[in-house]
Amino acid sequence: MSDQAGQAPGSNEAEAATLGEREIKATDQADALAKMEDLWRRALADADNVRKRAARDGAQLRAQERAAVSLAWLPVLDNLELALAHAPAAGDPLVDGIAAIRSQAIDTLSRLGYPRIDAENVSFDPRIHEAVSVSETDEAPPGTVLTVLRPGYGGTDTMLRPASVVVSRAVNADRG
Amino acid sequence: MSDQAGQAPGSNEAEAATLGEREIKATDQADALAKMEDLWRRALADADNVRKRAARDGAQLRAQERAAVSLAWLPVLDNLELALAHAPAAGDPLVDGIAAIRSQAIDTLSRLGYPRIDAENVSFDPRIHEAVSVSETDEAPPGTVLTVLRPGYGGTDTMLRPASVVVSRAVNADRG
Repeated sequence: MSDQAGQAPGSNEAEAATLGEREIKATDQADALAKMEDLWRRALADADNVRKRAARDGAQLRAQERAAVSLAWLPVLDNLELALAHAPAAGDPLVDGIAAIRSQAIDTLSRLGYPRIDAENVSFDPRIHEAVSVSETDEAPPGTVLTVLRPGYGGTDTMLRPASVVVSRAVNADRG
Repeated sequence: MSDQAGQAPGSNEAEAATLGEREIKATDQADALAKMEDLWRRALADADNVRKRAARDGAQLRAQERAAVSLAWLPVLDNLELALAHAPAAGDPLVDGIAAIRSQAIDTLSRLGYPRIDAENVSFDPRIHEAVSVSETDEAPPGTVLTVLRPGYGGTDTMLRPASVVVSRAVNADRG
């Protein structure tokens, strides 16, 4: 320090100023670098999130489209069933042929992930059944599916349409 | 410079070294900042590309799924048509009912973006027709669709299945 104290004041001050500026500059630059690194990391995380979301959305888009197209075809199957319900008994070649096409349509839905829901005498399950009527009976426990009025298609996760059913209720003691 | 030349050599050298280090540091930092900014811009562009690609892929996924599900249903419609082709003439309630369901299935495909291709006496178009047979005739210009053996579904952009057709050819003069 004693050496530097002997220097010309002007030069010393100029040097100190330059040093100071450089230190500020260096601090500014370190600061700017840290900020830029932060921006970079955010942009990387953003790209990563977009990528992950796209993969998730892709699976969802497919499932939505599969359900939409399958729903569009459902009336064709429903009407085949109605036509068969009003057709003469089996044995007629046309009736047998239409019954085979109905089975094919049901298989198609099942392969697409929408198995048929048409079991009777099972417990009512609000995830796959829609109760459109209630019937009093002693012949089945309360909450049993007595009749399937319109079959449903799908599982609990991939419901296309719940089955429309008649559900049992205990006979009212007052009236019974 | 003459002022500094009078200073103690040790101190001078130390100062110069410090200044030099700081200058290198400053240059390094400016360099690092430029590199980091470059990384940041690349990451931003990457996120942007991922976003654009996801939107494109989403539309493509939907279209693929729509085509796959529609193709799965096509045999149901084909078999309805076969059953009708072998059914007694219209007038029978079941036959009329099945004909209505066939129309409903054709409408469904059309609404999904796959209009029926079944026109005869049109020019053969390899984008929508598949020639399965050629027939010599003087009654239509060469390259005319004489008969549709199996209807197709789709447009030139969204082909589900081309129509299988018989195409005309000019009568061979040698044999004609």
